[in-house]
Amino acid sequence: MLEQEGPFTPKFDEKGLVTSVVVDANGGQIVMLAHMNAEALALTIETGIAHYYSRSRQALWKKGETSGNMQYVKTMYTDCDQDAVIIEVEMTGDKVACHTGRKSCFYRSVEGIGSDDPKLVYAE
Amino acid sequence: MLEQEGPFTPKFDEKGLVTSVVVDANGGQIVMLAHMNAEALALTIETGIAHYYSRSRQALWKKGETSGNMQYVKTMYTDCDQDAVIIEVEMTGDKVACHTGRKSCFYRSVEGIGSDDPKLVYAE
Repeated sequence: MLEQEGPFTPKFDEKGLVTSVVVDANGGQIVMLAHMNAEALALTIETGIAHYYSRSRQALWKKGETSGNMQYVKTMYTDCDQDAVIIEVEMTGDKVACHTGRKSCFYRSVEGIGSDDPKLVYAE
Repeated sequence: MLEQEGPFTPKFDEKGLVTSVVVDANGGQIVMLAHMNAEALALTIETGIAHYYSRSRQALWKKGETSGNMQYVKTMYTDCDQDAVIIEVEMTGDKVACHTGRKSCFYRSVEGIGSDDPKLVYAE
């Protein structure tokens, strides 16, 4: 059943978390990666609004509660072993996901693939 | 420096891992999520071929070594706190990422957002 259709039985890791890849429903860009505990995942599904678990603050984190940049879930996917999800979201407010004010947290490329001296460079 | 241009200083978690989101360079689909320890990340960058760390087997895992479905890294990105990467890859062999034979591990959607009874359904 784990790999088939049917009930959603998320596999939380030993810290009680699944990984969530967050994608902008408008355009498909990956905007952030975060983690959900069982409570955050259940709230996300029930309310349709992205909730995470902040590992640094060790607390439930309703994205946008202070910034106003909330994320409404349009579609959720899970992977073969159900230990990760993708959520496609509509962003509200400034429509940015990153605390730096950028749309995506992944705003830098690692240049130097094929070398042993990679450097970070701002991506377009 | 952590959030700017410059050296790549990946932040491994307490298990020594960063999360890697793997994207098909042809079309942009997210095909899998995996983890890299320092050795796997260094080998990925030096060789341009995706290496991971298998948490279940607790061993370095050169993707495709047995299946032939290797992944050549075209572009790598990291996020604001450098604890995750995206790799855009050219897949070889059968050009599938999932052990089930599917292109992507994320072949099911979680239906029932807005309810407390989600179900997994095969996505197109």
